Amino acid sequence: MAPDISGASPGVPIIDRLAIIGLGLIGSSIARAARRNKVATTIVAGDADPAVRARVEELALADEVAPTLAQAAEGADLVILCVPVGADAAVAQEIGLHLKRGAIVSDVGSVKSAVIAAIAPHLPPGVSLVPAHPVAGTEQSGPDAGFDSLFLHRWCILTPPEDADTGAIALVQAFWEALGSNVEIMTPAHHDLVLAITSHVPHLIAYNIVGTVAELEEATRSEVLKFSAGGFRDFTRIAASDPTMWRDVFLHNKDAVLEMLGRFNEDLTALQRMIRRGDGEGLFDLFTRTRAIRRGIVAQGQETAAPDFGRRAAETPAKP
Amino acid sequence: MAPDISGASPGVPIIDRLAIIGLGLIGSSIARAARRNKVATTIVAGDADPAVRARVEELALADEVAPTLAQAAEGADLVILCVPVGADAAVAQEIGLHLKRGAIVSDVGSVKSAVIAAIAPHLPPGVSLVPAHPVAGTEQSGPDAGFDSLFLHRWCILTPPEDADTGAIALVQAFWEALGSNVEIMTPAHHDLVLAITSHVPHLIAYNIVGTVAELEEATRSEVLKFSAGGFRDFTRIAASDPTMWRDVFLHNKDAVLEMLGRFNEDLTALQRMIRRGDGEGLFDLFTRTRAIRRGIVAQGQETAAPDFGRRAAETPAKP
Repeated sequence: MAPDISGASPGVPIIDRLAIIGLGLIGSSIARAARRNKVATTIVAGDADPAVRARVEELALADEVAPTLAQAAEGADLVILCVPVGADAAVAQEIGLHLKRGAIVSDVGSVKSAVIAAIAPHLPPGVSLVPAHPVAGTEQSGPDAGFDSLFLHRWCILTPPEDADTGAIALVQAFWEALGSNVEIMTPAHHDLVLAITSHVPHLIAYNIVGTVAELEEATRSEVLKFSAGGFRDFTRIAASDPTMWRDVFLHNKDAVLEMLGRFNEDLTALQRMIRRGDGEGLFDLFTRTRAIRRGIVAQGQETAAPDFGRRAAETPAKP
Repeated sequence: MAPDISGASPGVPIIDRLAIIGLGLIGSSIARAARRNKVATTIVAGDADPAVRARVEELALADEVAPTLAQAAEGADLVILCVPVGADAAVAQEIGLHLKRGAIVSDVGSVKSAVIAAIAPHLPPGVSLVPAHPVAGTEQSGPDAGFDSLFLHRWCILTPPEDADTGAIALVQAFWEALGSNVEIMTPAHHDLVLAITSHVPHLIAYNIVGTVAELEEATRSEVLKFSAGGFRDFTRIAASDPTMWRDVFLHNKDAVLEMLGRFNEDLTALQRMIRRGDGEGLFDLFTRTRAIRRGIVAQGQETAAPDFGRRAAETPAKP
């Protein structure tokens, strides 16, 4: 059913017509990366927001900008939904009947069980669903924020339903590999649990501490901003991520997030107790173990070891 | 009592003999920055660890490397303790009687009330104590990790005791300004409260979530490392900071840390409840407010707005 990709080679399009629905940070990065790597013959952009469509035209991110989502999806071989998870159901309903037989629908959502439940019911027979989650991003949003190397050397997790067409899975895998990603396949439920701890709970905690600061009395708050280089500013970077996207993530991965948050809370209570009791040995042991975890991430190639708290001075404007 | 600095100009040393005790990340950065900016005529290094002393010699970070801390401090005009906060009392005791009349003692500790209590009793009459806290650093440690622009455009907070000599305060201020820092003066107690929320609690939370991951069953843990680019890796950077230094911070700023941690916990409970109840509006409101805090920090010049989750691809080695 899916196009033959057995002879795929760099620079030879593996997709004829690629439709990207939602041109935010991720969608616009896919458009840029797909064009740079010549992955698709034609790139079609669809977005519900007229301002975004206008900007996509100005930036010339796509070959065609469709006036409606249905028109963007019409005749496409691969349709990627790059909208907040909470909007997937409505978008799938809007485009479902306009999809051609043999089309593949995919997405980029940070949760997967809920996304499959939202999209699958709206797809007609003969259309394959192969959900994907590129584990990449920045704290910025919108079509201007994307860039073509965002997915390079990053993981992309595919969570195909059990009955998914193997040809369709292979095509989506080839697509992400052509964008420079490493692809991994797992079940939606397992994805949601792993991402709860690697991504969702870290974001939640960052939002929370920045929220705690927002509640401080004005005088203290302005000092916190001033002296933020001591650690706090790194949390604000995470907590500057797109609010709509993250609201939807927490609403749609509730169980796994609450489970992992429970563990975090237990550990924090123990740590609080160590401080209250002056247990220096316990603190030192924990802080030593966490260093080892860091080394593991650098060794896996998912991070640079270059020091970053001391941001390159040249990048930071002088305070008068 | 303190040297006259009224005629200080760039490139003209404002200190004759500068002693740095402890040549880790901060101490070695001070040595490098003081030399680059020609702030002192002679830089003397002292370190209790023979391996560090040898490395300081190899890197030629100082004009003299003294065999003992007492000898490093002897005859110095400004002595800066750059050791973990828990070691301050012992170091002050070791050098106290060797300080010349008119000498100034300072430090770089992340807590200030406890540091003054630890150092002051060991200083003879005629020696001034002007504690300092450069709010700068990286997640790395040791004499090789330092660099001469670490303090550039960063804040340095001075917390002189009420009876401190004004000439001594002016000299320490001029010293840090010569290293490129912006200097702010506040009481030790206020410093400890502000830093508890800007620095100490953020570090504690980062250590805690990385600790939670360390406790996961092996299979899940290795996946967490693999997919860490989703947010977790930013916490591991913070949680890779020096264990001894941070153990001492939490033991010596216990009250302020527990107070701020209490607020954080209350807010986290409320957030958890929003997720459990599916309160999308509450989540969206919080996530929008936290974005504004981020903008405040970028506007204050303490951070770069350049996107960072999508680390420059070139810095990150490819995963085979």
